[in-house]
Amino acid sequence: MATLVVADPLPSPVDDAQDIRKAVEGWGTDEKGVISIIGHRDAVQRKLIRLAYEELFHEDLIKRLESELSGDFEKAVYRWIFDPAERDAILAHDAIKKLVPDCRVIVEIACTRSPAELFAARQAYQHRYKHSLEEDVSAYSSGDIRKLLVSLVTTYRYDGDDVNARLAHNEASILRQAIEQKAYAHEEIIRILSTRSTAQLTATLNRYKDDHGSSISKELMGEPNEEFLPLLRAAIRCFSSPYKYFEKVVRKSIKDLGTDEGALTRVIVTRAEKDLKHIKEEYYKRNSVTLKDAVARDTSGDYKNFLLTLLGEA
Amino acid sequence: MATLVVADPLPSPVDDAQDIRKAVEGWGTDEKGVISIIGHRDAVQRKLIRLAYEELFHEDLIKRLESELSGDFEKAVYRWIFDPAERDAILAHDAIKKLVPDCRVIVEIACTRSPAELFAARQAYQHRYKHSLEEDVSAYSSGDIRKLLVSLVTTYRYDGDDVNARLAHNEASILRQAIEQKAYAHEEIIRILSTRSTAQLTATLNRYKDDHGSSISKELMGEPNEEFLPLLRAAIRCFSSPYKYFEKVVRKSIKDLGTDEGALTRVIVTRAEKDLKHIKEEYYKRNSVTLKDAVARDTSGDYKNFLLTLLGEA
Repeated sequence: MATLVVADPLPSPVDDAQDIRKAVEGWGTDEKGVISIIGHRDAVQRKLIRLAYEELFHEDLIKRLESELSGDFEKAVYRWIFDPAERDAILAHDAIKKLVPDCRVIVEIACTRSPAELFAARQAYQHRYKHSLEEDVSAYSSGDIRKLLVSLVTTYRYDGDDVNARLAHNEASILRQAIEQKAYAHEEIIRILSTRSTAQLTATLNRYKDDHGSSISKELMGEPNEEFLPLLRAAIRCFSSPYKYFEKVVRKSIKDLGTDEGALTRVIVTRAEKDLKHIKEEYYKRNSVTLKDAVARDTSGDYKNFLLTLLGEA
Repeated sequence: MATLVVADPLPSPVDDAQDIRKAVEGWGTDEKGVISIIGHRDAVQRKLIRLAYEELFHEDLIKRLESELSGDFEKAVYRWIFDPAERDAILAHDAIKKLVPDCRVIVEIACTRSPAELFAARQAYQHRYKHSLEEDVSAYSSGDIRKLLVSLVTTYRYDGDDVNARLAHNEASILRQAIEQKAYAHEEIIRILSTRSTAQLTATLNRYKDDHGSSISKELMGEPNEEFLPLLRAAIRCFSSPYKYFEKVVRKSIKDLGTDEGALTRVIVTRAEKDLKHIKEEYYKRNSVTLKDAVARDTSGDYKNFLLTLLGEA
């Protein structure tokens, strides 16, 4: 469930665009005013505001906000304001083009979006960057990591709920064999993870756990932390327990020395309209602290206010 | 250019549906009547006829035609009547599910359709078979062939015309190195073939030819004809010279001992609305016989009449 609280009653996009204009024009910027609007509008509403703003003031709202805002708050607004497909394209591109590509972001996008959402992100990527996502992913990675990432981003999974129990049994055994042989990048592992429907894959992973007493991701925990293995584990966790996966990304982003604002912002903006409520619950269960308190302690100013707004806590 | 000759003036879909009904009802079927209608309607018009027929007579036109027609003619009508995405899905499924999968059909679909067409075929495949195309392709293939096929069918290439000349030069060298080492299934070959836009790939293949004096597909000709190599060559030819590729499929389907109606029908129905005129020209250049005469000599009856109609020769 989402945490985003959409304004009720909802002003028209034209009213919103005019109010944002008032907040950003002249000396100083009324950041609270900006948050009070865009922090309470869903993706479609934000898009309509962008269109209305362009129509009324002949300038790009996103560019204007970039020039008026700054720091982590600016970055978070810049992530939030786009619709999910464009945002995923930007997240993926930024992750790939880093000096050391942040492959976990690619795995996360590939494995937590619906097949239609992932495809929309690939279309948005091409539209923006004049390359395909898989083209850039494969040009900036190599070896087993490339195999895993390209397979995950290019798939267009079947989206139905049908599960073939025999297949789940067979493929759980195939996974088991490969993992026993420590052949973690085995082509069968990659094939199963990257082609099966989420429903089928979940059945296979559950079957694995039932048959062998522990989950794959637990079994991989004891292994040396090479570059490939954490990505494989992340992919599996994105399928088997996405809320736990996101909880961990948030937890680590806050707990590590210095906050990883990129990761914290990413989870909050990408999940606020989706399942951030579940992630919050997961966070509290795991840490005995609310995510609200944790975020409030670790961040400050407009950035903090904005995140708390998206968390449904302001 | 297409060879399909659309009727002018064009009857309404309702008139067409009624005329087809007259041709198929009662004793005996008026095959010529069926051909005179569906052999002169494009994909959108055929779809409207199917809808009108269902609406008027409460039965599925395709099922009715299947029960009324027979042999190669029936199969050809069954291929033609669908829209291109559904047809590609059926062609791919039939090819995969053969006792010995016909992987060339998969390569052909993956490498001669536009990115949007290939994606539409993947959607149609899921809709029809409740699996993804890549799921079935990877489950029914293995090793290097699987790597090639899955990469080709899952890609969603950038569709623009921009070409990076330096990249073409670099990747021509990468291809050259792999081919000199006879590492035909090298991951770099598969990466380049399966992620670059068609425009970029064409530039790279041309660059290869300019730098090394002969094309990749020529160089691969001398090599032992394992299973993988003909597929790699087919993929390259689909990009570098699709008309020649299709000409060869048709030529072999006619020349080999006994006509390969499956291949002959496939090329004619899939290209009649696209570029069959160019393929006909290529055929004449290569064989000094018109494709019309070759088809007329090798086929007979309603099947022959139907193919010649789609060839724009009846």
